[in-house]
Amino acid sequence: MKTAIIGVGLIGGSFALSLRKFGLSNEILGVDSLARHSQKALELGLINKIVTLEQATDQADLIVLATPADTLPLLAVKVLNKIGNTQVVMDMGSIKTELCEVMAQHPARGRFVATHPMWGTEFSGPQAAVADGFTGRTVVICNREESDSDALQLVEQVYTTIGMPIKYMNGEEQDLHSAYISHISHITSFALALTVLEKEREEEHIFDLAGGGFESTVRLAKSSARTWAPIFMQNKYNVLDVLREHIHQLQIFRKLLEKEDEKGLVAVMEKANTIGRILP
Amino acid sequence: MKTAIIGVGLIGGSFALSLRKFGLSNEILGVDSLARHSQKALELGLINKIVTLEQATDQADLIVLATPADTLPLLAVKVLNKIGNTQVVMDMGSIKTELCEVMAQHPARGRFVATHPMWGTEFSGPQAAVADGFTGRTVVICNREESDSDALQLVEQVYTTIGMPIKYMNGEEQDLHSAYISHISHITSFALALTVLEKEREEEHIFDLAGGGFESTVRLAKSSARTWAPIFMQNKYNVLDVLREHIHQLQIFRKLLEKEDEKGLVAVMEKANTIGRILP
Repeated sequence: MKTAIIGVGLIGGSFALSLRKFGLSNEILGVDSLARHSQKALELGLINKIVTLEQATDQADLIVLATPADTLPLLAVKVLNKIGNTQVVMDMGSIKTELCEVMAQHPARGRFVATHPMWGTEFSGPQAAVADGFTGRTVVICNREESDSDALQLVEQVYTTIGMPIKYMNGEEQDLHSAYISHISHITSFALALTVLEKEREEEHIFDLAGGGFESTVRLAKSSARTWAPIFMQNKYNVLDVLREHIHQLQIFRKLLEKEDEKGLVAVMEKANTIGRILP
Repeated sequence: MKTAIIGVGLIGGSFALSLRKFGLSNEILGVDSLARHSQKALELGLINKIVTLEQATDQADLIVLATPADTLPLLAVKVLNKIGNTQVVMDMGSIKTELCEVMAQHPARGRFVATHPMWGTEFSGPQAAVADGFTGRTVVICNREESDSDALQLVEQVYTTIGMPIKYMNGEEQDLHSAYISHISHITSFALALTVLEKEREEEHIFDLAGGGFESTVRLAKSSARTWAPIFMQNKYNVLDVLREHIHQLQIFRKLLEKEDEKGLVAVMEKANTIGRILP
């Protein structure tokens, strides 16, 4: 199978490595709006060839869209406008409501499969790509009934071979759950970094005193603003909903501590501990 | 050297393993108010013998206090009341202001060294002990001028042998920096777990969709309430100060998103990214 990856950053580059590792694709074409990204992807062996978007849509059996969330709806339409009826297009974005809405009436909608693999790191660009990030993580496939069965089957087979369990949802459900479970962690971490940078003026102390706990909690604050700002914007209502709840939970904590209500603090912490039952 | 560890949980148990690994102690006595903890520590080979507090203060060259923060001031006084003038006592607690204040006038104050090794995990109890957690992490020694030079030297030598760089601070400074860098991460994580448990009623979705990002940000929410409630209570003013700032930062994020100010969001995220310069 000949694959084209549009957007050869962390996600597209890692997917290219996975396709290669599991013998799913013998030729991988790469497209990126940044010449230094496609060049780096070629050097690192993520892709076999740098091509234009037109060459990609002309030649590839599977076209993978792995660009930032805000670019996906238009890009998906442009790609669907050009492909034939045996080619398959999939995206790997974090947000689906607008994308699925934009695609809904396209005559080639059936060739498209909307997917969200639940993996990423705080790093970005082709040099951040790793071969086995996706393996073992869940992938969400959205609005599967809108995809042709052969297109859906191909994408399911690719993800299954990589070792990713598949969940099916509609776009709205996926955006809601992603806000609750993925997007809020990033905001928490960005805000924690800003808090510590604001209060702890002595950078040396941050470096010296950071234990493993602080490091893991603040890790996502290194994530790319270019990736995450469009995700938060496109998922605004769900993200605001969960962000308001998060602020509320911190205020409960604050009030218990102000009142020196140690029993109350223990009770909320023990409730929080139940996350360990779900994520051992 | 004969060592007694009072409180053979995660911290005391891991310290026992480090002492053994680096050949610092040929006999380790264990004391714990929970019989099942001391029994487990013996079974796991963390300690050589279960003893009473009296036997520990009678026999050990180095007495290590590794019990919860709220128990340390009284325990330290009781132990100092009993020891001779060649024995050394150290604590491993996260909070120092009250402890150092209580100890200040004790005639044996010089035998005591106040320390805070910057390491821990979300697990607790003797079964959570690991041999090399401390190595490579910083330890803070507080109010060193109040310790006898031989006592200080012994404790410095122990930590240096384990591979822990030493920083010196007074108790108030250490509590401030610990609130900023360690304590707030725990509150963030507890509150994130509560947020997700509140909004995401379908536990199956939490389990399926949790990527590495969510897992690392919420990890500390599994931490023991028995350990952390007294730390927050004892460090109340510093913790409230940094918690208010954290809520403020989340509110800035919320307002930018409400106004759909994408440039503003990018600006705060890029500011947060600078944490990566300090913690690469």
